[in-house]
Amino acid sequence: MKGSVGELGEFGLIRELTSRITSTPAVRLGPGDDAAVVAAPDRRVVATTDILLEGRHFRRDWSTAYDVGRKAAAQNLADIAAMGAEPTAVLLGLVVPAELPVTWPTELMDGIRDECDVAGAGVAGGDVVRGDTITVSITALGDLRNREPVTRSGARPGDLVAVTGWLGWSAAGHAVLARGFRSPRAFVEAHRRPEPPYREGPAGAALGATAMTDVSDGLIADLGHVARASKVRIDIFSAALDIPAQMKDIGQAVGVDPLHWVLTGGEDHALIATFPPDTKLPARWRVIGEVLHPSALPRVTVDDAAWDKAAGWDHFAP
Amino acid sequence: MKGSVGELGEFGLIRELTSRITSTPAVRLGPGDDAAVVAAPDRRVVATTDILLEGRHFRRDWSTAYDVGRKAAAQNLADIAAMGAEPTAVLLGLVVPAELPVTWPTELMDGIRDECDVAGAGVAGGDVVRGDTITVSITALGDLRNREPVTRSGARPGDLVAVTGWLGWSAAGHAVLARGFRSPRAFVEAHRRPEPPYREGPAGAALGATAMTDVSDGLIADLGHVARASKVRIDIFSAALDIPAQMKDIGQAVGVDPLHWVLTGGEDHALIATFPPDTKLPARWRVIGEVLHPSALPRVTVDDAAWDKAAGWDHFAP
Repeated sequence: MKGSVGELGEFGLIRELTSRITSTPAVRLGPGDDAAVVAAPDRRVVATTDILLEGRHFRRDWSTAYDVGRKAAAQNLADIAAMGAEPTAVLLGLVVPAELPVTWPTELMDGIRDECDVAGAGVAGGDVVRGDTITVSITALGDLRNREPVTRSGARPGDLVAVTGWLGWSAAGHAVLARGFRSPRAFVEAHRRPEPPYREGPAGAALGATAMTDVSDGLIADLGHVARASKVRIDIFSAALDIPAQMKDIGQAVGVDPLHWVLTGGEDHALIATFPPDTKLPARWRVIGEVLHPSALPRVTVDDAAWDKAAGWDHFAP
Repeated sequence: MKGSVGELGEFGLIRELTSRITSTPAVRLGPGDDAAVVAAPDRRVVATTDILLEGRHFRRDWSTAYDVGRKAAAQNLADIAAMGAEPTAVLLGLVVPAELPVTWPTELMDGIRDECDVAGAGVAGGDVVRGDTITVSITALGDLRNREPVTRSGARPGDLVAVTGWLGWSAAGHAVLARGFRSPRAFVEAHRRPEPPYREGPAGAALGATAMTDVSDGLIADLGHVARASKVRIDIFSAALDIPAQMKDIGQAVGVDPLHWVLTGGEDHALIATFPPDTKLPARWRVIGEVLHPSALPRVTVDDAAWDKAAGWDHFAP
């Protein structure tokens, strides 16, 4: 593919992008009309949207367009899974500068499509406009399959806190990239392309999860959302957290306690859920804490003490 | 409301925005969790997304934040109506510079909410990030009420072509504003805040519309989408088009044939539909043309001749 987005024009670019989409059963009517039609067998649709900017959420020198597409889709699809729903479709809003090579948006589209494939969703439609800053806006839809949505507000004192997926890998990969390295590859890849455990979302709901969310801002920050919404305290057992040897090596190399990445690193889109204490959890879920009555301690503690380093991030912080 | 978006911070801004949302029956779970839950009684959901940039799609010196919100919501909700569906909910993705006064996004939200009210929809969720260019990304959802979606591809030779809503008003208002004037008010208002005939979308579907779309790019351009998708030709009867006396006056004042605005002006979000020839159309629909077999003539003609001025626009054109 040669040329720039400006040379190809709006309709040419839309043709290129839609030609990369594969049809899926849930997408009854795909791109090309005023709106798409997506199956919603549950009679309710789960919907979420995120907006990513170049420079703020991704860097073209760190991530390929393909990886940005995978990641942008993943973070929205993970939100659907975190409600206990099965992803069905995504819509894409895209801002591209006229001088951008056409390969960038087409590879982005390939990444979005492939991540949708992993999650069982299809690309239903979108919009493309010209602008100065590459902006990727994704809306994901999902189906609850006759289960109630698992919100953040249902955790009860006594519940187990369990996690499935990866914690701290993206943050460790970011630390590697920020220092100009490209390895260890597994962590760099985890930063470029998270692997949310999509199927565990509906599975967690079926296991009786009382609350669930995905780790996008960091374990402490996201458990904080659950604890506040549920009016409980949550204690994390640090000894239960899995810190791979290689992550420890990176921590030593860059002078960071790897526990910090596991507790505060976002973007891996692990799923965290609370379950009644007698729940028999399959091996893919690891118990890492418990739900307690609120106390004078912070909403989320680590081994019954405040974790006093910065948790999560505020997108408006300087 | 005082201060800038940066001073208020991400979570403060989200609180301000969500506090302005009113609850609606279709939005079962609104903002504040990983995703929203919206009713989809038809077991299918209609979905569309658009992305608007400051400088390209709106200007802060021409339109208030409230009007930008109304317009951004309207163009998406009109796409839902154009499928014959009833709007149920919107999601908002918003990019705001840190120095932007907080009143701008809160008044935008008020406009989105009020336009949703007009269309019968609710605000289900969103995302806010900091960036250099104000960007408003809206996704709208709708319900088909057990009717098949009315696409662009069902027009058949012999069908009537009818319109409901306004044509050329936004373009005439734009011409007024571009010359530094603020009146006639009705046209300036039409440019700032279109009034799509939402209810006529499902009503048109119930009347048996064979194809339908909304006029976002201009009558000729949008009928062109229908003609190409349906593999037909469409002829517009220029004498059937309503050109108000005041629009003629503006045309004379600025040296533009007002028929040009009616034929090529977008953004009014009128609905155009094709109907079987024996359809008894209520007064809100005006017959403006007919569907013909394809010929050597262009896909869309005016009084059986090519309309040789530029039709619609390409977002990537210089």
